[in-house]
Amino acid sequence: MFRKIIEVSSRDTDALGHVNNTVLPEWFEVARNPFYKIFNPEMDLNTRMWNIIMVHIEIDYINQTFFGLDVEIRTFVEKIGTTSCTVYQEAWQNNNIVAKARVILVHYDFNNEEKIVIPEHIRAELEKHLE
Amino acid sequence: MFRKIIEVSSRDTDALGHVNNTVLPEWFEVARNPFYKIFNPEMDLNTRMWNIIMVHIEIDYINQTFFGLDVEIRTFVEKIGTTSCTVYQEAWQNNNIVAKARVILVHYDFNNEEKIVIPEHIRAELEKHLE
Amino acid sequence: MFRKIIEVSSRDTDALGHVNNTVLPEWFEVARNPFYKIFNPEMDLNTRMWNIIMVHIEIDYINQTFFGLDVEIRTFVEKIGTTSCTVYQEAWQNNNIVAKARVILVHYDFNNEEKIVIPEHIRAELEKHLE
Amino acid sequence: MFRKIIEVSSRDTDALGHVNNTVLPEWFEVARNPFYKIFNPEMDLNTRMWNIIMVHIEIDYINQTFFGLDVEIRTFVEKIGTTSCTVYQEAWQNNNIVAKARVILVHYDFNNEEKIVIPEHIRAELEKHLE
Repeated sequence: MFRKIIEVSSRDTDALGHVNNTVLPEWFEVARNPFYKIFNPEMDLNTRMWNIIMVHIEIDYINQTFFGLDVEIRTFVEKIGTTSCTVYQEAWQNNNIVAKARVILVHYDFNNEEKIVIPEHIRAELEKHLE
Repeated sequence: MFRKIIEVSSRDTDALGHVNNTVLPEWFEVARNPFYKIFNPEMDLNTRMWNIIMVHIEIDYINQTFFGLDVEIRTFVEKIGTTSCTVYQEAWQNNNIVAKARVILVHYDFNNEEKIVIPEHIRAELEKHLE
Repeated sequence: MFRKIIEVSSRDTDALGHVNNTVLPEWFEVARNPFYKIFNPEMDLNTRMWNIIMVHIEIDYINQTFFGLDVEIRTFVEKIGTTSCTVYQEAWQNNNIVAKARVILVHYDFNNEEKIVIPEHIRAELEKHLE
Repeated sequence: MFRKIIEVSSRDTDALGHVNNTVLPEWFEVARNPFYKIFNPEMDLNTRMWNIIMVHIEIDYINQTFFGLDVEIRTFVEKIGTTSCTVYQEAWQNNNIVAKARVILVHYDFNNEEKIVIPEHIRAELEKHLE
């Protein structure tokens, strides 16, 4: 499991006084950085080097999130397929779960635009973070 | 069906040369404005007046989206429940579908923090936009 | 002068009920697209082709901006230097100016990381949009 | 001086391979939270309680910022006026300054829509963070 603390910004809130639904995907994205690092140790974000592409996200908004208290994002590997991987994420604030997400990422060759098999050494590393 | 044209901004792209996954939720959000207007004709976004809350989104990223060409968001009402409504949305660029989303919204009283039944006149309006 | 209509999204607002200060830079950015097109007719946003880099922005927030009414961004060329150009922008809502910005952009070679002189045909085009 | 560490997200980058200009205002905004807390110890972001409004920002983009390395935002009080305050901020990455900002904030009554004098106890606290 990876943990990431998010400090809520005024810009994350909306006129309903809570965090806008569009902000959760941003928090989940940055919290996947350590997951990306397993695939890309150099964190070299360009199409000649990078090897992950996102194909699906689903988010359940469980409680409202507010300004003034930090949010903790918890990130787990849920399932490791042949070429893809499912990540499960939760957002917590003030001891309440506020949202959960399930994300499917594909091991991908941007140059040839094709899926690639997840190699054994990456799979072994991912397994350490299984839920 | 509601249509919204989005002009892609440099800020929507990422270092992989395509539109970042976190941007699609923003485009889908603004494209739901006419849907919100059915529930809130005054578009008065504050908790004393507003009556919609989002509880779920799922997005399939089907093709990469790029800078330089407009994106069209198409928004349909998919299902009308007692207190909730499912919206189905597609993003198109250059005659290709690039993403689709399914969003569940609940008719909600922010003051009493409870679901409320969708009244008949709103239901009638929603039905005009069924897929 | 270039005009761009922005539809305000719930995500642009904050818990103070108005548009958050961080959103104006995004609106000004997308409204500069036609300006960028003068320099980059192909709108090919990558470092081998693109030739503009931003070095300065200043924004005056004059009135609060709200959800529910469109915003118009007006973009002018204010000054054309040897290698740089100053763009002046205004945001209007409901017949009031809500913000104004001044942006300095440099004609730039990303490969050699150096400023380049603005060629005559681009200068001629820019002059058509002088304030 | 206040310090805030920012972890760069893929969504902060653009197709030019660097952090997009529109992201710096967001980083500077969240880094002003401790400054806001001096004025609003409860961090209660609503117009009945909140007492700060932003009227001006200027940013110099000095070096490109990239994915893969953290950014540190340093925030100083530069000048304390009767009703307003100037904040000076710097963004650093990899021992280089990448951007600097100057922000003017006004002590403000949202209910009566008027400036208010900064009281002595807040002024005393602000002075501890003078550059």
